[in-house]
Amino acid sequence: MGSPDALSAVRRAVREFLARHENLLAGGELFVAVSGGADSLALTDAAAQAAHRAGLRLTALVVDHRLQDGSAEVAATAAITARKLGADEARVLTVTVSGRGGIEAAARAARYAALRRALPEDGGLVLLGHTRDDQAETVLLGLGRGSGPRSVAGMRPLDPPWGRPLLALPRSATAGACAELGVEPWTDPHNADPRYTRVRLRHEVLPLLEDVLNGGVAAALARTAAQLREDGDTLDALSAELLERARDGATLDVTVLAQAPAALRRRALRTWLLGAGVRELTDAHLRSVDALVGEWRGQGGVWLPGNFEARRSRGKLCVEA
Amino acid sequence: MGSPDALSAVRRAVREFLARHENLLAGGELFVAVSGGADSLALTDAAAQAAHRAGLRLTALVVDHRLQDGSAEVAATAAITARKLGADEARVLTVTVSGRGGIEAAARAARYAALRRALPEDGGLVLLGHTRDDQAETVLLGLGRGSGPRSVAGMRPLDPPWGRPLLALPRSATAGACAELGVEPWTDPHNADPRYTRVRLRHEVLPLLEDVLNGGVAAALARTAAQLREDGDTLDALSAELLERARDGATLDVTVLAQAPAALRRRALRTWLLGAGVRELTDAHLRSVDALVGEWRGQGGVWLPGNFEARRSRGKLCVEA
Repeated sequence: MGSPDALSAVRRAVREFLARHENLLAGGELFVAVSGGADSLALTDAAAQAAHRAGLRLTALVVDHRLQDGSAEVAATAAITARKLGADEARVLTVTVSGRGGIEAAARAARYAALRRALPEDGGLVLLGHTRDDQAETVLLGLGRGSGPRSVAGMRPLDPPWGRPLLALPRSATAGACAELGVEPWTDPHNADPRYTRVRLRHEVLPLLEDVLNGGVAAALARTAAQLREDGDTLDALSAELLERARDGATLDVTVLAQAPAALRRRALRTWLLGAGVRELTDAHLRSVDALVGEWRGQGGVWLPGNFEARRSRGKLCVEA
Repeated sequence: MGSPDALSAVRRAVREFLARHENLLAGGELFVAVSGGADSLALTDAAAQAAHRAGLRLTALVVDHRLQDGSAEVAATAAITARKLGADEARVLTVTVSGRGGIEAAARAARYAALRRALPEDGGLVLLGHTRDDQAETVLLGLGRGSGPRSVAGMRPLDPPWGRPLLALPRSATAGACAELGVEPWTDPHNADPRYTRVRLRHEVLPLLEDVLNGGVAAALARTAAQLREDGDTLDALSAELLERARDGATLDVTVLAQAPAALRRRALRTWLLGAGVRELTDAHLRSVDALVGEWRGQGGVWLPGNFEARRSRGKLCVEA
């Protein structure tokens, strides 16, 4: 059953999103990532409406991950539907999924890389169909992994070249919009496969949480995530200032760092270490390096992944491979 | 089956906690809240060990909520066990549970109020038996309610007069310690009653999350909560500075506020409004008041709970009943 309310909510969300970020549309082009599922088809319709009103050209980008039999047909059908919904052009991008970290992570990495390659060199904005329910899953996933405030803060509405106009809408709105439009979305069989963590969060954990907490969980997770993003942005900006004050060539001045609150110090140290080429930093690593500042008792250097060592010497922190 | 490792982990956690917070023990007294459950009995043993070594007098405080038949006997038994485990004194505090917000919230409010009243006027430290699993439940509860970063950050290890030395230990450690000590903890029938939200989080949601995310969830939630507390403390301190700079009598200077990042501004506004007597502020209220600073287009005042109104006039914010 379609819903004119759902359709107009999706269209309004996209229109308002584009109005807020006009500055990113100077090239006269807009892109939308299309899987053929309800989220991206409803998004394509709304993007086409808004793009044409604003005189923009809309290109649909369909990624064929080649992970399932018949994926080429699914991609071709999605491209055709995107054109019907008003995209000026629809391109299928074929990728090879490989690499570390499980098939979900590898597919995501391949998808984002392909979308980036499809953009003009001078930038561009790619709309993605993530909804509030996807946000809730992302927040729970980040929370369960303990990867810190950054991951609990979820996905950003705008993270160029990515734009997520539907983050405040429930998934039911995109399904309702598709029904109203009379388009039949593709249902990814992966979305029902309980071997995928995200699928189990969606079909088992979140419905149970909704039941236990009397509803409103996805909205609550999204609201908290939004506040955490604001907090995180503020802390990032303040820690960037701290890092500049503390920098002395390639080293950092311990006296400057020591006067700062712990949350800013650890963020500044993280940026500094990433800049020096250190990768796969954990919270435990950062706390050890921070102890060279805050709990100094003449201890030795801290070993970091990739054979780096952070040391304190004569009031300075330095890091070397 | 007991575990010497569990017993020594609990004792070490309490010993280290008290060593870190020696300054709060100047009165020579220490208190421990005892329900008769495994967490508080293991805590009482460890607190008695540490207290006597440090020359402190340990008082066990047992709250009888009078919500279940036989609660007086449960409380009396808990008091006797606490004495056997080494408490110098055990007092039963009888309370009447009433008031708003559901029975869990009302019982908690009555319990904390009774414990506070039992303390000497010049302060005191009450140890509470919350474990890492309680912390995980608290974080999930806060997250599901969408009550913001503050509630997702969970319980603090130290929040005078409350001290929570066991927050880094799993619940299994306290059960193991009790078995090793040969004490039989009381099992609160409420802890198996699925009408309580926390019970369902404990017995349904967290085990499912552990399964879906391959374990380590309670530890991950606790780790994230710790980082969020550090972030929150830093933002609170910086926003307190901002508030002092912005204050002009009972009003706030809009120019000073406008230059600050949103996360600091909203925290400063919250403290200011609470100070003026406004209660039950939601995120939506704060955002409306903040719009008087950041999105000023001559709009009228913002109505707040309790018939307060926040207005902007001649470059100042003011709030009046």
